[in-house]
Amino acid sequence: MSNSNNESLEFLFHPRSIALAGITTANPEHWTRTFLNGLLEFGFESPIYLVNPKGGEIEGLKVYPSFQDIPDAIDYVISLVPARAAPSLVKESADKGVKAIHFCTAGFSETGEDEGIRLEAEVVALCRKLGIRAIGPNCMGIYCPKSHMSFGPVFPKESGPVGVISQSGGNVNYLVRQAALRGVRFSKVISYGNAGDLNESDFLQYLAADADTRIIAMYIEGIRDGKRFRQVLEEVTKEKVVILLKGGLTEGGARAVAGHTAAMAGSEATWNSLCKQFGMIRVDTLDELTDVLVTLLFMPLPKGRNAVLVGGGGGASVLITDEFEKRGLRVPQLPQEIISQIREFTPPAGNILRNPVDYSQTMIYPERLSKTIDIVSRWEGTDFLVKFMRTGQSPQLGGIQGMLDIVKAGVFEKDGASSKPVAIVLEPSIIVEEAKYIFQSLQECVSLGLPVYYSFASAANAINLVLSYSEDRARHGYSRDLGFCLTTPVAKAAQTDEVRSGAKE
Amino acid sequence: MSNSNNESLEFLFHPRSIALAGITTANPEHWTRTFLNGLLEFGFESPIYLVNPKGGEIEGLKVYPSFQDIPDAIDYVISLVPARAAPSLVKESADKGVKAIHFCTAGFSETGEDEGIRLEAEVVALCRKLGIRAIGPNCMGIYCPKSHMSFGPVFPKESGPVGVISQSGGNVNYLVRQAALRGVRFSKVISYGNAGDLNESDFLQYLAADADTRIIAMYIEGIRDGKRFRQVLEEVTKEKVVILLKGGLTEGGARAVAGHTAAMAGSEATWNSLCKQFGMIRVDTLDELTDVLVTLLFMPLPKGRNAVLVGGGGGASVLITDEFEKRGLRVPQLPQEIISQIREFTPPAGNILRNPVDYSQTMIYPERLSKTIDIVSRWEGTDFLVKFMRTGQSPQLGGIQGMLDIVKAGVFEKDGASSKPVAIVLEPSIIVEEAKYIFQSLQECVSLGLPVYYSFASAANAINLVLSYSEDRARHGYSRDLGFCLTTPVAKAAQTDEVRSGAKE
Repeated sequence: MSNSNNESLEFLFHPRSIALAGITTANPEHWTRTFLNGLLEFGFESPIYLVNPKGGEIEGLKVYPSFQDIPDAIDYVISLVPARAAPSLVKESADKGVKAIHFCTAGFSETGEDEGIRLEAEVVALCRKLGIRAIGPNCMGIYCPKSHMSFGPVFPKESGPVGVISQSGGNVNYLVRQAALRGVRFSKVISYGNAGDLNESDFLQYLAADADTRIIAMYIEGIRDGKRFRQVLEEVTKEKVVILLKGGLTEGGARAVAGHTAAMAGSEATWNSLCKQFGMIRVDTLDELTDVLVTLLFMPLPKGRNAVLVGGGGGASVLITDEFEKRGLRVPQLPQEIISQIREFTPPAGNILRNPVDYSQTMIYPERLSKTIDIVSRWEGTDFLVKFMRTGQSPQLGGIQGMLDIVKAGVFEKDGASSKPVAIVLEPSIIVEEAKYIFQSLQECVSLGLPVYYSFASAANAINLVLSYSEDRARHGYSRDLGFCLTTPVAKAAQTDEVRSGAKE
Repeated sequence: MSNSNNESLEFLFHPRSIALAGITTANPEHWTRTFLNGLLEFGFESPIYLVNPKGGEIEGLKVYPSFQDIPDAIDYVISLVPARAAPSLVKESADKGVKAIHFCTAGFSETGEDEGIRLEAEVVALCRKLGIRAIGPNCMGIYCPKSHMSFGPVFPKESGPVGVISQSGGNVNYLVRQAALRGVRFSKVISYGNAGDLNESDFLQYLAADADTRIIAMYIEGIRDGKRFRQVLEEVTKEKVVILLKGGLTEGGARAVAGHTAAMAGSEATWNSLCKQFGMIRVDTLDELTDVLVTLLFMPLPKGRNAVLVGGGGGASVLITDEFEKRGLRVPQLPQEIISQIREFTPPAGNILRNPVDYSQTMIYPERLSKTIDIVSRWEGTDFLVKFMRTGQSPQLGGIQGMLDIVKAGVFEKDGASSKPVAIVLEPSIIVEEAKYIFQSLQECVSLGLPVYYSFASAANAINLVLSYSEDRARHGYSRDLGFCLTTPVAKAAQTDEVRSGAKE
């Protein structure tokens, strides 16, 4: 039954009706309301039915005491009932012709307690017997903006090319929110928890064939069927970029995995060999995963590893160079001819006209910075440009704002000022007054389709990972070009969207 | 002349008068005003003389057209004049009995141009001939809160046990600001740039003997006298903790160093061997340096490597465990007896009562979280506790604020709730509305003397570095205890201080 082909999962993303079973009627802040809020906020177009024995009304929608009371057929159920009530929910669902149930609730095998393990087995067996596919238990289910389905009311409403499968709801919530702020948009995101029925291979196979998905990001704690996963992976990595964050590689991490999704974590060696064999991009944190997505989507693939770095501060210039070069990127010496061109309109004191170009003193003249970027980007030795801004060393807001203005002046007119791929390092600040300006600048960069990173190290790391991936593909006879950099279309989407998809007062 | 002993440098930090040569009279926003602002803001108690051929008045202080016009003796000069004017400044200073000049201005050997190299040699030779010690050129000079000297008007006004020597003014500015926000306070901070006269060994030797300095942090680009540096290092590392950030270890980084302070960067192997031989703590970034300072100052040294992690989110629990264990810290399984104690008042669904203790569902009951922390901290298997909070995955401000309240409820009464060292992971947010609450919580944690980290990885890394250092010391026959954790006194200082030393509107 788990050898579902792709067609058979398409229905998960197009339910003709959804029932929310076990939604709380009393408290509007209760977590069970999240799913209703998501569907309403996203304007889910088919009927939504609410079920709770207490009856009543929520947000103008009738609450049915039981499934039997619902007059129509139901396609898809989001189960918010306690684990012990799940088996009877499955039976009632079958009577209503339900095709799929997303079991959100925890309290199953991940508890490690006999009762939870038994309940999960019972629910999965019942589903299979009654022809119902199950997502979960212990997960957040589906976010698919195209179908107006979302478990995050504040997620972006437009679609994008990134598909995600994640065993953790919290991690995928973090990923979508943080990546959205930097312009990333998603096709289908599936949080699938304990993988009692549908598992990582089912979803990966689905995304492999999904025309809306060009990049696949995975947060995986354990694998249900290693042989099948390997087969699916072999196929999908030929066609799409796959990025993997594997949780639970340490001994303690594997124990945490057992407690979280009851999965077997697998050894580091196994995972290393999988990544190497099939050419996945491997990351260690959700932030690193976001950095890679940003690079793939917003940085046209550089032709090589030579970076010209432009910013302010001699010490910062030294540190950013070390971060780039220790990851195998190169910060080559500028030829005298290029230095002379910059020197014509730039005094040497307080500026360092090498690479990095430290424009500390001359930052106050945006037109000079812009001219400098133009000169270095035309140099044949430059494969890509990095504009960095260490806001954390500037003591005054005026200075920060001025620096931001100049970053914009110098880099934002990409076609004019720079003919090579550009990356922006914009360091966040914990100080609220500064955070305002930095967030504003982030939004401006994102709306122009620029890749933004929060530290020297994260920019260097992500650019190296993407270059290494592309070099590796070329060695295996594939085109080096990844062919889906979205700078223009996503930039447009970002402009029309609530980029700050996170905060809701 | 460069074999200065300690007494001979004490005068640098106690000038009986300071002259600011070359301060701009016209524009109050000009960078040359930074130093006057610093001295005034810090209430420098001895006379300040301003010198500019144009004369006039700044902030109620007379501007003297030349040194000759100043009626009194001058002890210490901050030179803000262009490089080409430096030699005559030295001569005029000698006539006024000046003992030390801090050459702030750039345009010397770091330009790589003949004229700059010649000028620096001339200035240093002149100083030596005329009995004047020089700091710089191309640097920010001295921050010594006890003496009311500061090149950063917004730096903390109280002193602390951390001495810093840095070849970069920007890097030390960043370090002081960022570390101050997390409660770190400084004894003496010296930005010494090109090290034309006084160099790293002079300052290190001074801090070694300085009673106010217990921890020494260094940002070094290159060494002027390797043999002497090695000797000084051998002595100082016996008595004080030394943390090193070495800039310019890559090929490109070494070129950047040449352009920044004209220093020879030295090979990675040399520096590795120095660190190993003398037991320094080695860091790669300024943030990592800050993390180590925070750990040394605010986390009583754990007796071992066993951590109990408490937070919310199953996926986050897996990822934080991997970050700790891959750095050699341990996240041991809780014994059944401890789990049973927690289980008595905690439902299993949505909580994971292992280690990490994932209190996702029960977070809304602060008294339960507090009781849980109390139970796990009393377990003999626990060496230290980490309370983590992944704000980035929460979609609503209400949720974030609630989580923060609970973090406080559970951890802040340290003596009551937890009998073991506690670390807090508080992830910043780029979203302004969230940043407010996070900054507020940071301040509350800091005012209570708690060590706060911004990511799972940075907490794990810093705690491991400090434990490794202490274990290494024990292997070499020194006391394992570092003996200067400042939780109480610094906590008090932080409460009376402008912790948000950064932003000035």
